[in-house]
Amino acid sequence: MQKIIYLDNGATTKPFKNSIEIASKYLEENYFNASSLYNGGVEAGLAISDARKSISSIFGLNFDVIFVSCGSEANNTAINSYLKRGNAVTTLGEHSAVYEPFNEFKKAGYDARFATLNADGSVNVENLLSLVDKNTVFVSVMHVNNETGAINDINYIARRVKEINPRIIFHADGVQAFLKIPYTLSCDIDLYSISAHKINALKGVGALIKNKRVKNLKPLIFGGGQESGLRSGTENIFGIKVFEASALTHLKSLKENYQNAIELKKYLLNGLDSSIFKIISSENCSPYIISVSAVGLRGEVLQHMLENYGIYVGTGSACSSKNRHSRVLKAIGYDEKVLDGVLRISFSSQTTLDEVKTAVSALNECANNLKRTMQK
Amino acid sequence: MQKIIYLDNGATTKPFKNSIEIASKYLEENYFNASSLYNGGVEAGLAISDARKSISSIFGLNFDVIFVSCGSEANNTAINSYLKRGNAVTTLGEHSAVYEPFNEFKKAGYDARFATLNADGSVNVENLLSLVDKNTVFVSVMHVNNETGAINDINYIARRVKEINPRIIFHADGVQAFLKIPYTLSCDIDLYSISAHKINALKGVGALIKNKRVKNLKPLIFGGGQESGLRSGTENIFGIKVFEASALTHLKSLKENYQNAIELKKYLLNGLDSSIFKIISSENCSPYIISVSAVGLRGEVLQHMLENYGIYVGTGSACSSKNRHSRVLKAIGYDEKVLDGVLRISFSSQTTLDEVKTAVSALNECANNLKRTMQK
Repeated sequence: MQKIIYLDNGATTKPFKNSIEIASKYLEENYFNASSLYNGGVEAGLAISDARKSISSIFGLNFDVIFVSCGSEANNTAINSYLKRGNAVTTLGEHSAVYEPFNEFKKAGYDARFATLNADGSVNVENLLSLVDKNTVFVSVMHVNNETGAINDINYIARRVKEINPRIIFHADGVQAFLKIPYTLSCDIDLYSISAHKINALKGVGALIKNKRVKNLKPLIFGGGQESGLRSGTENIFGIKVFEASALTHLKSLKENYQNAIELKKYLLNGLDSSIFKIISSENCSPYIISVSAVGLRGEVLQHMLENYGIYVGTGSACSSKNRHSRVLKAIGYDEKVLDGVLRISFSSQTTLDEVKTAVSALNECANNLKRTMQK
Repeated sequence: MQKIIYLDNGATTKPFKNSIEIASKYLEENYFNASSLYNGGVEAGLAISDARKSISSIFGLNFDVIFVSCGSEANNTAINSYLKRGNAVTTLGEHSAVYEPFNEFKKAGYDARFATLNADGSVNVENLLSLVDKNTVFVSVMHVNNETGAINDINYIARRVKEINPRIIFHADGVQAFLKIPYTLSCDIDLYSISAHKINALKGVGALIKNKRVKNLKPLIFGGGQESGLRSGTENIFGIKVFEASALTHLKSLKENYQNAIELKKYLLNGLDSSIFKIISSENCSPYIISVSAVGLRGEVLQHMLENYGIYVGTGSACSSKNRHSRVLKAIGYDEKVLDGVLRISFSSQTTLDEVKTAVSALNECANNLKRTMQK
């Protein structure tokens, strides 16, 4: 098998090597139901408690951890709890796991409002604030945009939102920020979504981080009352333990990885043929996600050409890969020629400079070849 | 470590030995996002398609498979789709993942109705039918009761229900039935919930089986539109592939395993000291789940005494292990002395006669010792 240079880490990441070893313990030895009262079950319950403590300690004393099955479930749980009365505000830049539930409520007649974006995909804060009023019950602003890497200053936005109406529940989708960029959540943040498989852990686990002050969260899944009654269903213990281990590994080298990603981004942006590639992501964006456009060319054709070099890049969000154009980049206002040529290059802590060097050469070569073919 | 005789397979089962090997392929090699358009992603998508075909073929041509994160999610998805208008009917014997969402709708003012039970925990069909009327939109009856093993003849019940009102959506929680007892679903069944970790696959995966005719199912989780728009979130590919493999293994030896479980049940029921143990499960119940009561003794004390012999049994549903008495057995009408002494012994296809022999001796010994202690 050809060695793959995987540069679509915004879609998912390769699990760390020790993931299988950690998972195996909970598949071969302690496979018990964590709600059972015999030793094996109690130990499983304690192992989950430990994981909860490890992850909540990353966020600090104000926050609890509710384990769920994925980032999408975390987002839906938050939104579904509050979009009952008044109005709710989000942005046009959200991942579909926030945008679509908002849209569903809007279709059902609810007053759901969408703030406009800046050129790099960050939210236009003044526009967002103009949509917030005394009847707003919920505001959701993603932390790092999954297509452009744009960083929203959620602590600042949450404070401004709460100055207008302190009763608002402020949620942020932190899936692309968690353990990638350095931050701390202020106490103005009420709910925050994270996902395991974006940080080299396993698919099938995510968490909703809940400010202890938040009381009226409503489960999406009722039943056995696991997760303090906020998420029923037998606990995915091996997935939770791998999530914990990956999170602690990332935490230890967060700054180092961040610096590395900055270097990779710098190399990429300097190396791309500027006569072809337009850079969509701004300098202030997360170094892990870079959106570019080979203006006038087709992104998916380039994507397939790069595959022949063993290089995997995205064309936008994997979740909306079936749509021709990115909803988010369209909302920013880019024209068809730019939208057609979009590629998303996203790094992980494992990405090396050598890989990026190879990718840059291939990107330039493929784009120039494609351009020549089209000019014939 | 002491060898465990695990007789709480109703709570969860030990993953088959090849689970880790199968999972590893999708953690080490094809870890890609199944919605991505490059080869690795396309292959991941096809692998999920294959798993969908394997599992749907067990149910036949009328049924589709929607992968979700657990049996509880499957149940909640079904219920949440329909309890909007009219009334809905279920039973007092349901697992909490059906009972609690029904209860939530009832608390919110919705007309949710609960049918009474027979002595073995099966639903009183005539009582259920008396609750169904022209305004009923949804009926949910579990296939095999998770505490007593009672089997409801869901095909018959669904037919009778649809004679009253053919527009009703009929759902069954099949978590404890799937690949344990032999059956085929009739075309009167609209929705059917199953879970991977109850058949020696992994926690974190379940499925809602959907009759192709059913059109108005509503997702619980909106977003990227995975699972034909019915369940968003990055697909848990390794969990789905292990689910497929376990299901096919079980399918091959379903009858043989069923006969084995019948032998185990027979041995258990004949072997238990009848001066102490009252048998709650009837002869017609699933041979995999046997509910007994050491009348006048405390089930959880017996459970802990059995642990010293390396034997794990349940005291009821693991999901409601925090309540003193089983809600379901209480609804049947058992008095406190019976309820106090309840133990659930549940087999898997891996349980051996030798294990059951050891367990029967230990059960008799522990119960007699406990009885003597209490009489002092």
